Amino acid sequence: MTQPPLEPEDRPRLSADELAALLDTLPPEELISELETLHPEDAAELLSRLPADVVHELKPGQKLLDVVEEFADDDAADVIARLNEDTQEFLLEELTEGETVEQLMAYDPKTAGGLMTTDIVTVRSGTNAGQAIEQIRKHAGEDGKSIFQVYVVDESNRLKGVLPLGRLVPLAPDKPVDAVMDEPEAVAAPNEDQELVARTMARYNVTAMPVVNDKGLLLGEITFDDVIDVVEAEQTEDLLKFGGMEALDTPYTQIQLGKMIQKRAGWLLILFISEMFTATAMGRFEGEIQRAVVLALFIPLIISSGGNSGSQATSLIIRAMALGEVTLKDWWRVAVRELPSGVTLGLILGAVGFLRISIWQAVGWYDYGPYHWRVAFAVGASLVGVVTFGGLAGSMLPFVLKRFGFDPASASAPFVATLVDVTGIIIYFSVASVVLSGTVL
Amino acid sequence: MTQPPLEPEDRPRLSADELAALLDTLPPEELISELETLHPEDAAELLSRLPADVVHELKPGQKLLDVVEEFADDDAADVIARLNEDTQEFLLEELTEGETVEQLMAYDPKTAGGLMTTDIVTVRSGTNAGQAIEQIRKHAGEDGKSIFQVYVVDESNRLKGVLPLGRLVPLAPDKPVDAVMDEPEAVAAPNEDQELVARTMARYNVTAMPVVNDKGLLLGEITFDDVIDVVEAEQTEDLLKFGGMEALDTPYTQIQLGKMIQKRAGWLLILFISEMFTATAMGRFEGEIQRAVVLALFIPLIISSGGNSGSQATSLIIRAMALGEVTLKDWWRVAVRELPSGVTLGLILGAVGFLRISIWQAVGWYDYGPYHWRVAFAVGASLVGVVTFGGLAGSMLPFVLKRFGFDPASASAPFVATLVDVTGIIIYFSVASVVLSGTVL
Repeated sequence: MTQPPLEPEDRPRLSADELAALLDTLPPEELISELETLHPEDAAELLSRLPADVVHELKPGQKLLDVVEEFADDDAADVIARLNEDTQEFLLEELTEGETVEQLMAYDPKTAGGLMTTDIVTVRSGTNAGQAIEQIRKHAGEDGKSIFQVYVVDESNRLKGVLPLGRLVPLAPDKPVDAVMDEPEAVAAPNEDQELVARTMARYNVTAMPVVNDKGLLLGEITFDDVIDVVEAEQTEDLLKFGGMEALDTPYTQIQLGKMIQKRAGWLLILFISEMFTATAMGRFEGEIQRAVVLALFIPLIISSGGNSGSQATSLIIRAMALGEVTLKDWWRVAVRELPSGVTLGLILGAVGFLRISIWQAVGWYDYGPYHWRVAFAVGASLVGVVTFGGLAGSMLPFVLKRFGFDPASASAPFVATLVDVTGIIIYFSVASVVLSGTVL
Repeated sequence: MTQPPLEPEDRPRLSADELAALLDTLPPEELISELETLHPEDAAELLSRLPADVVHELKPGQKLLDVVEEFADDDAADVIARLNEDTQEFLLEELTEGETVEQLMAYDPKTAGGLMTTDIVTVRSGTNAGQAIEQIRKHAGEDGKSIFQVYVVDESNRLKGVLPLGRLVPLAPDKPVDAVMDEPEAVAAPNEDQELVARTMARYNVTAMPVVNDKGLLLGEITFDDVIDVVEAEQTEDLLKFGGMEALDTPYTQIQLGKMIQKRAGWLLILFISEMFTATAMGRFEGEIQRAVVLALFIPLIISSGGNSGSQATSLIIRAMALGEVTLKDWWRVAVRELPSGVTLGLILGAVGFLRISIWQAVGWYDYGPYHWRVAFAVGASLVGVVTFGGLAGSMLPFVLKRFGFDPASASAPFVATLVDVTGIIIYFSVASVVLSGTVL
């Protein structure tokens, strides 16, 4: 006697590690047969994490249809959107839920509409608890695992209220649902950005949130598992952007070398070309360097300190903006805080820099020449200016980007450092010119 | 006739913006009266976001007791842990759930034990569906909003299975729960790190996850809303660390200026002191700079390109590690990918750098001296070396940190840049010495 094959929903789930291992070892051509043995959620996840070019190659066919047939409608929409046109057409034609999936695909995948499922339990206003439970039974058969709440609607499908299962269960069967349902407090519009959706669900601690159009009609629901995925994806995007590159659409281990280089080369070139202004700025001070080479020794130290101070300030503000703690109108309040912070931090680094030069000179580890006191003072004073400027520029950059309609998270650490480098050189040589005037300069 | 006051659970929830506005405008002394008017979840959230020193000042008293009495036990434990000793003692003594809360406080707040609530519905193995629903009714009264599943245990409270409400509801009352419950697939140990807990819940798409000790006894459950908070907090910590500073424990707008400067000064000083090696490295090449000042002009351009390439590689690897795509043993595979990426990116920047110098010279915008071809070549060749080294160092640093037990996310952009700056200077002057030997050097 052989074991009958497990129903798709009953297959064991893979752990994150097992899934990663599968992605690592699976040759794309064996993909479809492998997918048939997985839990539908895992199969959908695996497909979504494959490189774009592999997914694009998938051919129309019964096997693929069988796999996608088991997906939730929102997962199906996400996967099908990445296939080639022929395969898309075939699946949308053949799938039982093809029409629904096609409707979901019309929404921008980064909005509430793109995240929602239409597979929900609704009951008419006026229904009693017993009838609602009957409705769940019909909808779910034996497996209502992913039903968390029931939506109460009027005769035109306008959303009236939300009834969490934990509140429905204890009710006497003849109790009307309207008496115990919650007002729909947390609701998403179909074109609402996914980040806002995630934030709202986290704030209201809801497992699922209804999506309602501007006429009040109930379209579907977003469940918490999609939101966790969104939060993770946004987190990746923000960190990579802050690191100074475009976000990848494929995991690091999966992406083709050429694609990855492409994603990195763009920003690297922009930063490089901007940083060329340092050569221009230094060129203007070639005479000063010629007369006091000792000044050149401290250029990397000084400009990098400005960049570091700026990088700190930028990461603070990007995060405070993402969490809604700071908005555009707060720029002045932030500037007023960053100024004294910058001066204080600059004074600390300036003092250390001054001591470093003085001690090396006193002990005899290096000879900074006859005007070493002045050199030490010029370095220390420049550090105050550069660190202060770095903090101010770094904190204001996200505001400027946001003001002009860009993503404030584009203000990467390398971007800020580049901005501050040019200014740092000008500050340093200007201070040095004053401090050393009448001596070497 | 006056309206009777709303039950705490029925009070409207605040939006994220309203909560932020309240935090901005509320003087700490009016805090407690204000908390009494809020939904308990909002009150707990508000308390958790107040600056440590304000929370520490809260005095024992009936008002505070009334507020905390409404909290879920895990929220109460989190809040009480931040109070001063007298207030802690008072609350743990007076709270109805004081003993439970005290037990929860024994767990590290960053572990599964610290996140869990003990307020769950358990039924004995052998119970039928009707009895389980009766159990929910008893437990929840009229409001079971936060009940998502029922835990099935044996006579010693060992976890046997999990029964989601959506699966319980459609059952006939005499159906035994054991026949339809799920095997507990996703389970946390009490000392499991919260990041791992969040990742597991996201992978298995579970709304709530049981916490079970090493004897198999059920201790409590973690619900998805705590997990979203964890993911957000970790995201903040990672971005701030990557920006080169310690994570703040208070929102940017709330933290005292002195505290913020403290959080920034530490890393800024460490980076500054490391960056001093650039001055030492440059000192070794003072003679070369003296003879060919033109070389100094390109130092910021070259070293910053290495830092940028390193920052990209580091952000990629930190994120791939956080998502479990890359583990310690993958270092060699990563190195083998980063080498050709680095060389390619270096060749692109090197070519642009070479052209920049040649064009400026040809058009007459700057005079790089009689050996300008060699200078251009030295700059271009150094860029290949520095960008490659930056990518390699940036990608390997998280592995090195992890290998020695540090958080790989401590590999901040400024940290990588500092590492690469010193090496960049050495590479540049070494290449220049070879290329320009017999001419100016």
